[in-house]
Amino acid sequence: MKLNEKGLLVVLSGPSGVGKSTVCKALFEKKSHKLVYSISMTTRKPREGEVDGVDYFFVSKETFLKYIEEDLLLEWAEFVGHYYGTPKKYVEEQLALGSEVVLEIEVSGALQVRSKMPEAVFIFIVPPKKQALYNRLLERGTEPEKKIQERIDKADREFLLAHKYDYIVVNDNIDKAAERIISIIIAEHSKTERTIYKYMKMLGEE
Amino acid sequence: MKLNEKGLLVVLSGPSGVGKSTVCKALFEKKSHKLVYSISMTTRKPREGEVDGVDYFFVSKETFLKYIEEDLLLEWAEFVGHYYGTPKKYVEEQLALGSEVVLEIEVSGALQVRSKMPEAVFIFIVPPKKQALYNRLLERGTEPEKKIQERIDKADREFLLAHKYDYIVVNDNIDKAAERIISIIIAEHSKTERTIYKYMKMLGEE
Repeated sequence: MKLNEKGLLVVLSGPSGVGKSTVCKALFEKKSHKLVYSISMTTRKPREGEVDGVDYFFVSKETFLKYIEEDLLLEWAEFVGHYYGTPKKYVEEQLALGSEVVLEIEVSGALQVRSKMPEAVFIFIVPPKKQALYNRLLERGTEPEKKIQERIDKADREFLLAHKYDYIVVNDNIDKAAERIISIIIAEHSKTERTIYKYMKMLGEE
Repeated sequence: MKLNEKGLLVVLSGPSGVGKSTVCKALFEKKSHKLVYSISMTTRKPREGEVDGVDYFFVSKETFLKYIEEDLLLEWAEFVGHYYGTPKKYVEEQLALGSEVVLEIEVSGALQVRSKMPEAVFIFIVPPKKQALYNRLLERGTEPEKKIQERIDKADREFLLAHKYDYIVVNDNIDKAAERIISIIIAEHSKTERTIYKYMKMLGEE
């Protein structure tokens, strides 16, 4: 019996190169929870095989700017001439259905979400050592040295934002990291601030 | 890799008759964690087979009063002419060794611990319905009606203290309740306030 029936918005973030998407994939393979991905909205054109409302919500620039103006996005960013963002409505609908919505996102986006939806759960994924992350970035290998150095500098700045998150999860082992995230979701559902309302209601019943 | 190497003091409490000790037993059977029981100190005489330092720390009334005076107990109470309490030192030693110390305790004791060790994890175990708890108390059956009514009244007062705890766990199913507590322990170890110190140390290392 769950005292909290609403789903949780689980924001998975961490410095560039830490392996967020790999951990996220492992998390969805667990299937122990009703997890759904948040769907982003974008102004870029659909690629071959991409489906509107599944891969992305594809919209015009005009529509996107209207979403920004009317504060209908949890976060947004511009990237090589296109806009990307997270529509609030889809997230809220899924939460109301009792799904846990997973938002895998860069640090700057996560901090925007924090200000709009403080009741979300913010998890910062970190490497066991800084060097492990540098190695990952270096091993990608196809990029020019300057670009790699820029990424390392970005990661170094992002490393320092861990204190803005609720949890720090070490990605020393992908499966263990995913397990810890599942435990965090279960624990958060038992938190007093999320359960007290239904608990008090239960007390009032005969 | 754990970013928090110190153990947690896990305070399991709840209204009289909710089944705290049954859930606690199920928790220890999981063995997925390094759990130890907190050992109480008492002024009552050892019973046949009870071992000092295992079942209880057996002490004189004089010693017990000295412990109270010197603030060496996390909580204490007098019960039918004997003193019972939780010595801080044993708990702190076990936490330093990385064990999770489980303290299964009545509501009034738990609130004393809260004031002395706020970093402990406070879990309130509740029945799925109030009536389920009343039935348990009524079914014990060997006690006079007046005594049973007293217990029900006590439980009713204790029900209202849920908001003083970090988590509310429903004991609708003993095994599931124990699983939720394990998840809470894992999640608490990842909390930023418990991990940031070691994380910042990691950042400082080459």
